[in-house]
Amino acid sequence: MDTIFKRRSIRKFRNGEIDQKKIEKIIRAGMNAPSAGNEQPWHFIVIRDRGKLEAITKVHPHSSMLREAEVAILLCCDVTLEQYEGFWVQDCSAAAQNMLLETTDMGLGSVWLGVYPIKERVDGLREIFSLPENILPFAVFPVGYPGEEKKENNRFDPARIHFDTW
Amino acid sequence: MDTIFKRRSIRKFRNGEIDQKKIEKIIRAGMNAPSAGNEQPWHFIVIRDRGKLEAITKVHPHSSMLREAEVAILLCCDVTLEQYEGFWVQDCSAAAQNMLLETTDMGLGSVWLGVYPIKERVDGLREIFSLPENILPFAVFPVGYPGEEKKENNRFDPARIHFDTW
Repeated sequence: MDTIFKRRSIRKFRNGEIDQKKIEKIIRAGMNAPSAGNEQPWHFIVIRDRGKLEAITKVHPHSSMLREAEVAILLCCDVTLEQYEGFWVQDCSAAAQNMLLETTDMGLGSVWLGVYPIKERVDGLREIFSLPENILPFAVFPVGYPGEEKKENNRFDPARIHFDTW
Repeated sequence: MDTIFKRRSIRKFRNGEIDQKKIEKIIRAGMNAPSAGNEQPWHFIVIRDRGKLEAITKVHPHSSMLREAEVAILLCCDVTLEQYEGFWVQDCSAAAQNMLLETTDMGLGSVWLGVYPIKERVDGLREIFSLPENILPFAVFPVGYPGEEKKENNRFDPARIHFDTW
């Protein structure tokens, strides 16, 4: 699937409006991820407020590109929705990967800004977005028109493939 | 992206050979996932040995479809490759989602059989595949020609979308 190989981390953005329909398409892809027992523990905060985007850069050390991004999506988990203990991170990661692929497929760019399990980032995001106790911020995804071009990256390494045993 | 919506958990398989090139394509997709600091901590064990597939069903309670599957892939993590503490689960989950999408795109079926962090499954898999201490079994993916047809599932829930704050 071409999109899997085209997807690269985009950290520079150029101007260009991104309407809510496009953002909804990305979130829709996230929501169609598999989850343990189909528990679907995710929530999504769409961020267009420039003050909030700026505030994130103060609590997340690798997020300065949010100043250039048209919009960002904060993926959160409602831990009370978890039915299979310890699996929510996997659910949200699968949703995240779907979001990145859909973004790429639409000609937009994004990058996975890890939040959980780093305490300072979790606490910082919780404060900015007034998250209740049961909502954990998982990762932030800036979304914008790519301001950098990156070639497909071949990460294939046959040494990582084993047959029938280690 | 259609494939994201076509992907469903396939637990019934029909006969049909799956050559190594196809399996390599699935693994290649997994290896192209993003990872924290590009740490790429993953390893893949391709399992065709019927005895090993049967052995997994004894330690994993939801894996009986492995008896029907032509082949399976065990996704593992080499924890010594982790550069950003606590992020390897997210890396492997993104790889897993790429694998499921590539499998779907090829007209094959699979399902994410969670292993980590359930201790009995981790220990059981470790023994079957003689995994060294630093290698953690993460999840198993049976691969086969779908023996069941599942319609696209609309999981979209606008109540999970928020704007600029909780």
